[in-house]
Amino acid sequence: MMSESNKEGAALNQVDQQLIPGQSARFKKQIEFILEVDKLKHVLRQTILMDRSRRENSAEHSWHIALLVPILAEYSKESDIDMLHVMKILVIHDLVEIDAGDTYCYDDKGREDQSRREEIAADRIFGLLPADQATEFRALWDEFEKRETAESRFANALDRVQPFLHNYFTDGQTWQENQINSSQVQKRMRPVKDGAPVLWDYMNTLIEDAVKKGILAE
Amino acid sequence: MMSESNKEGAALNQVDQQLIPGQSARFKKQIEFILEVDKLKHVLRQTILMDRSRRENSAEHSWHIALLVPILAEYSKESDIDMLHVMKILVIHDLVEIDAGDTYCYDDKGREDQSRREEIAADRIFGLLPADQATEFRALWDEFEKRETAESRFANALDRVQPFLHNYFTDGQTWQENQINSSQVQKRMRPVKDGAPVLWDYMNTLIEDAVKKGILAE
Repeated sequence: MMSESNKEGAALNQVDQQLIPGQSARFKKQIEFILEVDKLKHVLRQTILMDRSRRENSAEHSWHIALLVPILAEYSKESDIDMLHVMKILVIHDLVEIDAGDTYCYDDKGREDQSRREEIAADRIFGLLPADQATEFRALWDEFEKRETAESRFANALDRVQPFLHNYFTDGQTWQENQINSSQVQKRMRPVKDGAPVLWDYMNTLIEDAVKKGILAE
Repeated sequence: MMSESNKEGAALNQVDQQLIPGQSARFKKQIEFILEVDKLKHVLRQTILMDRSRRENSAEHSWHIALLVPILAEYSKESDIDMLHVMKILVIHDLVEIDAGDTYCYDDKGREDQSRREEIAADRIFGLLPADQATEFRALWDEFEKRETAESRFANALDRVQPFLHNYFTDGQTWQENQINSSQVQKRMRPVKDGAPVLWDYMNTLIEDAVKKGILAE
């Protein structure tokens, strides 16, 4: 899926090559990647900011959940996990959205071909990096998607917790606009149970409370 | 300096206390902090995005430089530094701007009372956390400001590199709007020399090139 922003990216890369005379191929690739990922700041999510002024973008979301690591590390299901690894996973986990867009978590149709779209995006975007870093970043993203390690399970938990908090503390505006019910939220939040059970209990309390208040359909 | 957003914050905190029945005081403080830091997404910087569509906010900037850690780690002046520590510093380094605002790096007047404003902000914002985490986060921020450790020097280098790249690769738009010259840029970028000398050399090449192209005043 070649988007407009992709074409701009290609143009930029040519400029980039001209503008960095005398640099090694490795360094050029790193700079090119750094300039390219700026586009994540244009990818809008369904989540709204706490003051409800606008939707959040995926760069802001990625920062917010990376910051959750040192705050909520004590709630990881498995202790003694590598928090640097978790933070690396979180800062790169949404980069595929630069090409594939943000797929709303309750959009069943959009989610059908999401994996395929994101795989193609991962090939292109991580492929901009020097080979060793491309391999490392791709492995981090695959790990996040597969949720087979303690680090990726905790990372997935944080990735679900933050938008949930925004939804709850903005009186469920996004839930209501998209006619989401409590079973859908509970199903969507299930990875929190696997990565951070204390947070899962808390979220269930809030889900119950949201239904009671009428800001989330039963 | 109490801003409008502070007053909103106070109101939110009261709501927050009501909305988390049965939670420990520690947990409430953590959630309160997580909701409060959302405000960093409203703090606009002078830097513009690569497509020049709008100014960048400090949450986006914080994400971008945290992502630079795994990409540019090999250029740290001192090897064997703690990259988790660097990432933690970077995700929290701008939080004081929620109260103190972003002070443009070439605004000498604004910078006069910047330290005092930011100290007050740090007291309030990190003070929202449980005592042990408040102490940890405040120490990380102090470390960033003082630049006395290898980790903080590398963090400072990355914090300067990213906006510089945006300026250069958008044809110096922000430099020109603010009538900045090459000596000012060089002085501002000096921490890059202390944290990542290879990147400093690269930036000097680009500064020279920018002057040659007429996108930065000599």
